[in-house]
Amino acid sequence: MPSQFDPPSGTRDFLAADVDRREHAFAVIRSVFASYGFEPLQTPAFERLDVLLGRYGDEGEKLIFKILRRGEHEATGEADLALRYDMTVPLARVAAAYGSQLPTPYKRYAMGSVWRADRPGKDRYREFYQCDVDTLGSSSPLADAEVLAAHHDALVALGLTDFTAQLNSRRVLAGLLAAFGIPPELGPGVLISLDKLDKSPPREVVAELTEDRGLQIEQAADLVGVLTARDAVAQVRIALTKTDEGSAGLDEVDAVLSLLDGQIPAERIAFTPRLARGLSYYTGPIWELIAAGVAGSLGGGGRYDHLIAQLGGPDVPGTGSSLGIDRILTLMPGATTGAPARLDVAVTLLGPDLAAQSFGFAAAGRSAGLRASVYLGSSAKLRTQLKWANDSGARWCVIYGPQEAQAGLATVRDMRTGHQAQVAAGDLAGYLTTAARADG
Amino acid sequence: MPSQFDPPSGTRDFLAADVDRREHAFAVIRSVFASYGFEPLQTPAFERLDVLLGRYGDEGEKLIFKILRRGEHEATGEADLALRYDMTVPLARVAAAYGSQLPTPYKRYAMGSVWRADRPGKDRYREFYQCDVDTLGSSSPLADAEVLAAHHDALVALGLTDFTAQLNSRRVLAGLLAAFGIPPELGPGVLISLDKLDKSPPREVVAELTEDRGLQIEQAADLVGVLTARDAVAQVRIALTKTDEGSAGLDEVDAVLSLLDGQIPAERIAFTPRLARGLSYYTGPIWELIAAGVAGSLGGGGRYDHLIAQLGGPDVPGTGSSLGIDRILTLMPGATTGAPARLDVAVTLLGPDLAAQSFGFAAAGRSAGLRASVYLGSSAKLRTQLKWANDSGARWCVIYGPQEAQAGLATVRDMRTGHQAQVAAGDLAGYLTTAARADG
Repeated sequence: MPSQFDPPSGTRDFLAADVDRREHAFAVIRSVFASYGFEPLQTPAFERLDVLLGRYGDEGEKLIFKILRRGEHEATGEADLALRYDMTVPLARVAAAYGSQLPTPYKRYAMGSVWRADRPGKDRYREFYQCDVDTLGSSSPLADAEVLAAHHDALVALGLTDFTAQLNSRRVLAGLLAAFGIPPELGPGVLISLDKLDKSPPREVVAELTEDRGLQIEQAADLVGVLTARDAVAQVRIALTKTDEGSAGLDEVDAVLSLLDGQIPAERIAFTPRLARGLSYYTGPIWELIAAGVAGSLGGGGRYDHLIAQLGGPDVPGTGSSLGIDRILTLMPGATTGAPARLDVAVTLLGPDLAAQSFGFAAAGRSAGLRASVYLGSSAKLRTQLKWANDSGARWCVIYGPQEAQAGLATVRDMRTGHQAQVAAGDLAGYLTTAARADG
Repeated sequence: MPSQFDPPSGTRDFLAADVDRREHAFAVIRSVFASYGFEPLQTPAFERLDVLLGRYGDEGEKLIFKILRRGEHEATGEADLALRYDMTVPLARVAAAYGSQLPTPYKRYAMGSVWRADRPGKDRYREFYQCDVDTLGSSSPLADAEVLAAHHDALVALGLTDFTAQLNSRRVLAGLLAAFGIPPELGPGVLISLDKLDKSPPREVVAELTEDRGLQIEQAADLVGVLTARDAVAQVRIALTKTDEGSAGLDEVDAVLSLLDGQIPAERIAFTPRLARGLSYYTGPIWELIAAGVAGSLGGGGRYDHLIAQLGGPDVPGTGSSLGIDRILTLMPGATTGAPARLDVAVTLLGPDLAAQSFGFAAAGRSAGLRASVYLGSSAKLRTQLKWANDSGARWCVIYGPQEAQAGLATVRDMRTGHQAQVAAGDLAGYLTTAARADG
C-alpha cells in the first residue's frame, strides 16, 4: 500500500546496494561506448515545451510531463517546459545548435533518465534510465553495424549471455508489402499490427489487419502466414527478390550481418522479417535486443535518415540504438545479497577525551586508501561498538581505550578471524596498508 | 542572442569535454565520500508537490518547478509533482519511509541535479549539480567534523588549494545576541541581516538591523562593531562566556576545531563569528567553504537537529553539508584545452569490399583495450581519412587497402611519428597491445 513517504507513483528510491549495482552497470556501458569512439553528451532534464510537442504522436504526447509556468504566469495553468521524453529530440536540437563544433560524423552516447507518464507496471516506470548510442552524418551500413555492436558488447560486458539481436530493415518490410500487393499508404498501419506478432496469436493479427488496416483477408492471411512460417526467412528472401525495394532491403540486412560476422556469434543475431518496430521514422535497418523470459525488448534501434531534419535539426542521415537499464539489471549475474560493506576500518570511540585521536585513526585508515570512520553513536560500550563495526562490514576494527591511550598504541582487531594486534599509534596507516595488501 | 536551438534558459548542454571534466570531478568526490563510509542514495527527479510545499519559505517556494497534472486533469492547470529543489527534503522522506532498513547512524551522500527557477546569471543556473553528505542519528560533534572534513578532502582531491572553511555555531550567535541584550524573538531576522556582512559595508547592515530588524541603534552598532573588529574572535570569545548558551556554542566550535586539528591545515579553517547562514533550521555548528575571488560559497552546511522531523521524517538529529560543483569546476586546475581525443585507433575504409575486414580491425583494437573505430564517412581518399584519424586524436591509424588485403597485412601508422609498420592481419591486436604498453 502506498504511504505518504513513498516516492511518486512510477518512480523509485535507490538505496546503497541498488545505487552501487546501477553505477557499476553504467560504468561498464560507458566504457564500452567510449571504446567505439562514441563521445558523451548531456542535455538538460527539461526542454522547452515546443521542442517536444508534435514529435511523439498523439499517444506519446499524452505521456509528456509538462512544467507549469512560474511567477505571475503560474495562474494561467500553462506549461512552457517539459521533462525529457527521450534522448533523440535533444540530440536533434544539439545537432542544430552546435553543428559545426561537432565532429563529422557525430558519434555520441547519452546516458540518463527520461520521463514518461505511462501507467506504472512491472518493470515499467515513469522515470527510467536510457543508454543511447547514435551516429549522425553517415549513411554507411558500417554505422548501423557499429551502434548495434556497441549495444551487443555492452550486454556481454555486463555478463549477459542469453539474449539475441533481431535484425530487419524497413525496406524489407516495404518490399514485402509490395510483393503482397499491399498499397504503400496502408503500410504504416500494417506495420503497427505486424509488430504484435511476437505477442499475439497470428489469427488475431490477421483479424486486426483486415478489420482495422484495410487488407483483404487473403492478403492478410498470406502475409502473416509467410512471416510466421517455420521457414519464414527462406520464404521472405524469395518474395523480396521480386521488387527492387525488397532486394535493396535484403542487401542492407545482409551487409549488416556480414559486418557483424565474427563479432556477434551467429546464434545471437538473426534476420527477423516480422520485426517492424512501431515508430514511423525508421528508414533502413532496424533491430531489437531480446532476452529469453523477458517481456518486451532490452533495447533496439535503427536507421532514421530524415528524423533529425524533421525534429528541427540539420538534414543528416542518422542511426542509433537505445538500451533500457532496468530489465538488463534483472538479468545481470551476481545480484547483490544484503547490504554491501560500507567500511573497511571501523574506529571505536571509548571516551570523550579520546575523540580527537580516534577521529585521527579514521583519517589514517583513509590515508591507507581504505574506507574508514569513527563510531558516531552514543554507547560507550565496546560490545555495542564492535557490533556496529561488524554491521558496517568492516574488515578491521581499531580499538582505542584508556589503556591503549596510556601506552601510545591502538589495538587492531581482524573482524574475520578475531585476532588482535597492538600497533604503535603512529604506525597505524602503515600497518593497515600492509594488512590490506595481504588481503589482496 | 538565444536561438531556438539553445537549451532552456538557465540550463546547459554539456558536450564531450565538459562531460569528461564533470564526470571526473564526480568520480573523485564520490570516492572521497565513500572513503568516509558515506553510502549513496538516489531519489527521483521529482517529488509529490505536497512533500515540497511549505519547506523553503515564501521566497524559496516561488522557485519550485511544478509539474502539471496529466490526462483529463491537465486542463485544471494544477500541479501534483515538482522537481527536486534540494537533497535534504528527499532525505527526510527516505528516512521516514525506510527507517528500520537504514543503518544507524545513516551516513549518506547524494549527488545529482536540483532545479530552482532563480533568475539565471553568472555561475547561477536553474539546473545545477549538488554533492551532499549528511549524517542522521548522531548528535556528536564528530559527525559535524566528519561531514566538513569529507567536503574539505573532496576539494583537496580535486586539486583546490586556495580555499578556507569558516566555522561558527548557531549557539554562538544566540549567546552573542543574548550578550548584547537582543530579545530571542528578533534573532532570526537579525541573523539574516548579519549574514550580509561578507558582502555589504557594516553601516548598511547596521541600518538594516535598526530599520528592519527592530534593534536599538547602539545595539546594532555594538554588535556589528564586535563582529567586524580586527580582533573579532577574541572579543566574541569574551562576550560569549557571559551566558550559558554562548559558552556552550563556544565549546561546540572548539570541539570541531580540535577534531579537525591535523586533518585540516590551521590556515584553512577559522572560527568566524559573523557567519550566520540564512536558513532558519540550523541548531548547532555551521560552516561555509569559500574561495578567494569567488562570489558566494563553494558549499556549506551545519547541524539541523529537528529538521528531519519538521520535514515529516523521524525525530533524529542531523548534520550535513552541501557542495555545488559549478564554481568548483572553474577553480580546478588543468582546464582542458580543445576537444579530448575520441579514439586511440582509427581504421581506414578504402573500398566497399574491404569493409568487413576494416570493421574487424576496429574490433581487434578494442580487444587490445583501446578505443577504436572504422571510418564512416563517404570519401575513399586516404588523405581525407588520415585527416579524420588526426582530428579524432587517434594514436595509430590502421591503413588497409587493396595491397594490404592481397598480402594479408595491415599498415599501422604511428600518428605521432609518421612511422609505418606492416603487421600480419591476424596479429593486429597483439601489435597494438604491445605498442600501447610501450606508450605507458
